[in-house]
Amino acid sequence: MKKVNIGTVGYGFMGRTHSNAFRQAARFFDLPCEPVLKTICARNADRANAFAAKWGYQSAVTDWREMVDSKDIDLIDIASPNDTHAGIAIAAAKAGKMVMCEKPLGRNARESEGMVAAVETAGVPNMVWYNYRRVPAVTLAKHLIDDGRLGKIFHYRAKFLQDWTISSDLPQGGEGLWRLDVNVAGSGVTGDLLAHTIDTAMWLNGPIKEVSAATETFIKSRKHSLTGKVEPVGIDDASMFLARFRNGSLATFEATRYARGHKALYTFEINGEHASIAWDLHDLHRLEYFDHRDEGQLRGWRKLHITDREHPYMDKWWVPGLQIGYEHTFVHQAADFLIAAAAGKSASPTFREGLLTDDVTDAVLESAAKRSWVPVKKREEA
Amino acid sequence: MKKVNIGTVGYGFMGRTHSNAFRQAARFFDLPCEPVLKTICARNADRANAFAAKWGYQSAVTDWREMVDSKDIDLIDIASPNDTHAGIAIAAAKAGKMVMCEKPLGRNARESEGMVAAVETAGVPNMVWYNYRRVPAVTLAKHLIDDGRLGKIFHYRAKFLQDWTISSDLPQGGEGLWRLDVNVAGSGVTGDLLAHTIDTAMWLNGPIKEVSAATETFIKSRKHSLTGKVEPVGIDDASMFLARFRNGSLATFEATRYARGHKALYTFEINGEHASIAWDLHDLHRLEYFDHRDEGQLRGWRKLHITDREHPYMDKWWVPGLQIGYEHTFVHQAADFLIAAAAGKSASPTFREGLLTDDVTDAVLESAAKRSWVPVKKREEA
Amino acid sequence: MKKVNIGTVGYGFMGRTHSNAFRQAARFFDLPCEPVLKTICARNADRANAFAAKWGYQSAVTDWREMVDSKDIDLIDIASPNDTHAGIAIAAAKAGKMVMCEKPLGRNARESEGMVAAVETAGVPNMVWYNYRRVPAVTLAKHLIDDGRLGKIFHYRAKFLQDWTISSDLPQGGEGLWRLDVNVAGSGVTGDLLAHTIDTAMWLNGPIKEVSAATETFIKSRKHSLTGKVEPVGIDDASMFLARFRNGSLATFEATRYARGHKALYTFEINGEHASIAWDLHDLHRLEYFDHRDEGQLRGWRKLHITDREHPYMDKWWVPGLQIGYEHTFVHQAADFLIAAAAGKSASPTFREGLLTDDVTDAVLESAAKRSWVPVKKREEA
Amino acid sequence: MKKVNIGTVGYGFMGRTHSNAFRQAARFFDLPCEPVLKTICARNADRANAFAAKWGYQSAVTDWREMVDSKDIDLIDIASPNDTHAGIAIAAAKAGKMVMCEKPLGRNARESEGMVAAVETAGVPNMVWYNYRRVPAVTLAKHLIDDGRLGKIFHYRAKFLQDWTISSDLPQGGEGLWRLDVNVAGSGVTGDLLAHTIDTAMWLNGPIKEVSAATETFIKSRKHSLTGKVEPVGIDDASMFLARFRNGSLATFEATRYARGHKALYTFEINGEHASIAWDLHDLHRLEYFDHRDEGQLRGWRKLHITDREHPYMDKWWVPGLQIGYEHTFVHQAADFLIAAAAGKSASPTFREGLLTDDVTDAVLESAAKRSWVPVKKREEA
Repeated sequence: MKKVNIGTVGYGFMGRTHSNAFRQAARFFDLPCEPVLKTICARNADRANAFAAKWGYQSAVTDWREMVDSKDIDLIDIASPNDTHAGIAIAAAKAGKMVMCEKPLGRNARESEGMVAAVETAGVPNMVWYNYRRVPAVTLAKHLIDDGRLGKIFHYRAKFLQDWTISSDLPQGGEGLWRLDVNVAGSGVTGDLLAHTIDTAMWLNGPIKEVSAATETFIKSRKHSLTGKVEPVGIDDASMFLARFRNGSLATFEATRYARGHKALYTFEINGEHASIAWDLHDLHRLEYFDHRDEGQLRGWRKLHITDREHPYMDKWWVPGLQIGYEHTFVHQAADFLIAAAAGKSASPTFREGLLTDDVTDAVLESAAKRSWVPVKKREEA
Repeated sequence: MKKVNIGTVGYGFMGRTHSNAFRQAARFFDLPCEPVLKTICARNADRANAFAAKWGYQSAVTDWREMVDSKDIDLIDIASPNDTHAGIAIAAAKAGKMVMCEKPLGRNARESEGMVAAVETAGVPNMVWYNYRRVPAVTLAKHLIDDGRLGKIFHYRAKFLQDWTISSDLPQGGEGLWRLDVNVAGSGVTGDLLAHTIDTAMWLNGPIKEVSAATETFIKSRKHSLTGKVEPVGIDDASMFLARFRNGSLATFEATRYARGHKALYTFEINGEHASIAWDLHDLHRLEYFDHRDEGQLRGWRKLHITDREHPYMDKWWVPGLQIGYEHTFVHQAADFLIAAAAGKSASPTFREGLLTDDVTDAVLESAAKRSWVPVKKREEA
Repeated sequence: MKKVNIGTVGYGFMGRTHSNAFRQAARFFDLPCEPVLKTICARNADRANAFAAKWGYQSAVTDWREMVDSKDIDLIDIASPNDTHAGIAIAAAKAGKMVMCEKPLGRNARESEGMVAAVETAGVPNMVWYNYRRVPAVTLAKHLIDDGRLGKIFHYRAKFLQDWTISSDLPQGGEGLWRLDVNVAGSGVTGDLLAHTIDTAMWLNGPIKEVSAATETFIKSRKHSLTGKVEPVGIDDASMFLARFRNGSLATFEATRYARGHKALYTFEINGEHASIAWDLHDLHRLEYFDHRDEGQLRGWRKLHITDREHPYMDKWWVPGLQIGYEHTFVHQAADFLIAAAAGKSASPTFREGLLTDDVTDAVLESAAKRSWVPVKKREEA
Repeated sequence: MKKVNIGTVGYGFMGRTHSNAFRQAARFFDLPCEPVLKTICARNADRANAFAAKWGYQSAVTDWREMVDSKDIDLIDIASPNDTHAGIAIAAAKAGKMVMCEKPLGRNARESEGMVAAVETAGVPNMVWYNYRRVPAVTLAKHLIDDGRLGKIFHYRAKFLQDWTISSDLPQGGEGLWRLDVNVAGSGVTGDLLAHTIDTAMWLNGPIKEVSAATETFIKSRKHSLTGKVEPVGIDDASMFLARFRNGSLATFEATRYARGHKALYTFEINGEHASIAWDLHDLHRLEYFDHRDEGQLRGWRKLHITDREHPYMDKWWVPGLQIGYEHTFVHQAADFLIAAAAGKSASPTFREGLLTDDVTDAVLESAAKRSWVPVKKREEA
């Protein structure tokens, strides 16, 4: 079987989820190729070596350019902080490598435009790791909507709630904390959490037309862990917006790291003419479904346990009733990408789709700054 | 409109629920008669008078025989402790009064037999206040089963969990505590809580054939609040049994006052060939329903919110989405009785049905004592 | 005991909830006065008489001015459509009557200002029936916040979702449908549903500083049931807004009648520095509570069953574990008003508090029309 | 690092969960040794080879004796049907191999006794794969009980509900269906499902003293897929029992494959003097906890989301809020065994502990047959 040699950049949280995804995809899916964990790249050589040993990478490097230049690498997978995405992706595409990039694509649409241009010019398979599309319950929601089960959509509402930065003692930036450093991350919860909700929303409900947003930084200055200085905080701690989709539906979106009691509560609900759907990440193996066409006295929200063989992806795993978890969404995405790439294609969401999400996050930040409604940029289809 | 003059015995918890039921039934139902709270009877004259003033009774007495002997009373409603049920009911029936009796009917089947004989001989409308049949969700369950929606029944499981007697400081007997005094109550949770679960179960699933039970008294002696003496506790604190119904289904039943965290968690679940139903008293306005005939990928437990006009009794109350509470079950039962009684009939559960529940609780206590399976007495239909 | 003679205007849904509230308050609370259902007023004499018979009113009239002019009436309770509130309330206040008014106070703040002026000039006890404050779970939330349990508040989110007007066949206006007629109602879900969420929010979290809103009318024209003509729909079917409270917290609010699967799903959640609270009307007897000060491994959302005697109002009802329903919130409010009024005081929310809610709904509608942030009017304390 | 060469017998459902467990344990845990998937054994050579390729086994054999005889194998892992457990385990132990065995240990206690004797005589590390002990929520329950948080235990209730054999068309025995063949499985749900609930129960709550059971075979005869003949069904479709633990607590247990709507609903609840715990497999990443020592008005069941780093095993996985799934329980167990084995020890549950569960299932089947209470065999500690 043809091998696909993978060079991964980044050994943090996402380096682990991606590495695991490639390994597990080959065990649980029938792939047309064999993914090989070839090289891991990270700045600290010792840690890179340890990571390579743990995950079975054949080698470790400290400069990603080595991987881009290497003939042994077929696929560059970017799992490093946001400020590195564009540089690596563009170089990789130019070198003719397939490129997978952790979300968000760039720190803003301008960066992402360069990345899209690079992969489209090079014609290389590409994908952004918006993993929540591959939660089986979310994929099922997509099927139901595409089948027309919901009818005309009236409402969409999503939120992504966390509570891990409430303490004022938490430094900004540094090891494990780059998401708090605006220069590295690009923005706060807007790019980190809202981006997920926007990607899913546009996948399920089509393009967003316009937004009215507000953001807030509750703790205005924090010590930076690298410089040791107390500096103004550049990121948004909370971000929320109203939206109108092009299909006429209304929406509310909200993300925050100040919602005490929630660790990663990503939820969405869609209300259509005939049926409604709700989901949340804290019980990701469930989908709630209401169908008005059910017999009147027996209408109710169905709490679907998405573990049957006929549910998306679930024939790959165990038996009915036995749930999967968070990392499986990455496994599904790795498998889908490897299958598409073997046929020379990209997998969804492509870099171009990732750019469309950045268009919305840019509009959100602009709206919040201007205190006005802002239209989302309308792009030509690729 | 014809008046029905009511004489109520007992002003405790059940005196209040019954009095409220008669008052509210006339406001929310179209009754063929007007219930009149004529006389309240209780041993303490001052309290009886205060209760009469509060609830609008026209008079108060301290001896129920006065009500039985009075021509002004059409209906005797028994809301006093268990040891008084038989005496009052039999006398009332002999006097030609309609009789409603709080559950359980008697302290045991022998007492209940006398009560059944009395009302059947007298031909007076009668009813036992097993109020949970009239929770709209439970009534809907009955309709679904009777419609054959569940198909053949395989399993029934019920429990009634409380935690209010865990403290060893609680006295047995006395004001508000007669349920802990075996002489007054007849038994512990078996007659108090299991009786409810048995009444519902036989209504929904038919007669019980045999039982294997165990009971326990966790705290072996308590001070009696009337005598002040520490005495052996005669009641069962917990009671559980396996059962076979005559229709071949299997069952588990359990009741206890030692289930920390539960105040009145009466739950049941029924599993049939095609569908299943589950309900619990802590969210009494909901019914959970699973239908295997639903499309495969969309099968799931539906959490029905029983507040629509097409749900049993709910056209009498508010608008969809607005829930009712505990006391409404008594209102429904009062209304059903008054409607039936106006036509000279009893309402379900009749005294005879109440006796059948006592047959099961007797079998449970016998089984627990003998440590063996015990058949439930099989009676001729009335 | 002193009697309070009540004249009620309106025999619809709210006429029933109010009438029941006065009757039940006297049974379940120790009131300093006796509420007497003296006169019901409604345009249709036959129905008014039937309603009087059902609920025990001593008389029925068809012109509310008779009640205002009558010396036998102490309290005017307004349960008629929104367009009648101001006229009745002002006349009643001028006549020295106590006034209770169904929400919203006026159809807009300008109407409400006149009503506030009238009751404050006359010095008569007054109250608006924002009943959800008296859900025991909501009252408990208020106690917890006022005790400082949540610490600094970061987020508030509320929604009120219904689905009863999705059909395009539904006429606007007419019997039972005045809420769809903008001339009668003043607005759509903004005044009907959002007003509830705003009243609760400001009670719990203080004044709202500014809003950015959007509204939508999904079905643009409907037949009017009175004229028979198809006419443009003047009400908003959906209304949503972002807000900043004066205390610095952020909020999202949404109301709609196009959320398939929800009948009356009013929900709110509050996230504070130390703790969070969530509640919803479909299970109104529960409150969800998360406390970060709990031991780490045992931190979790507590699903409180608000039926214990130490919970607000619950010592008036049954025993732990047994839930109350929707109409009890009106009973609590009636009791609180009668107790306050006996001391010559108003009960919360007063007309002035009702006006503050109208200030916000006015700002919402203005923001939606202007597509810009709008500050909420800042008023002097009374 | 020292290698542990593993020979696995069986490539079905359990062969996959075990193989995955060894692979993942090395990625997510810091192990003192390196597990090597050396040899897979299965009767069909083609399938064995395919399985070896998929999972990375170095070789495949069709006779487990080859592995027992091989010096290259350190550990025999038994994932084949129940009727093969004893033979393989005893031979493996005699050959000095470490032995891991899928549950139940033997088809009955007599078989298990031989297996225990073999491993104890040989002094080899051993373990039975009762995987649910290693659900982090269940492990946390164990910690809470051992810490004395619950106080004296009053009640234990467990059930394991499935619905996959309701159709009478399902054959008994054959590929993927050996659990329906009494000769292979030993019993029906008693050994398959109740055994899990018993293992957990005794781990959490100590030894069971006596049981009263009933079993049922709803479909009395089925076609055997190997012989093609319609034959009497030997297994129990449903099994339920009452129990008393040695610590005085009461229990109900139930397992069935006829509970429509449930795929693998294993639930348990424990009620103690001070606190209670509840868990279910359909949402395995949650634990419900009630603590009576909480402040009165804020007492409620906490729905713990077991994804924090301080929860058992969860520091090995992702970040707070992100759940794991079913197969992780096997990963935990593999890791625990490999760590223990490196120190020459067994991991819990050992074969001896597995035998104690078989003692209870034997007692259950005997009680059901005799229709009487049966004491559970009392054994000396090893």
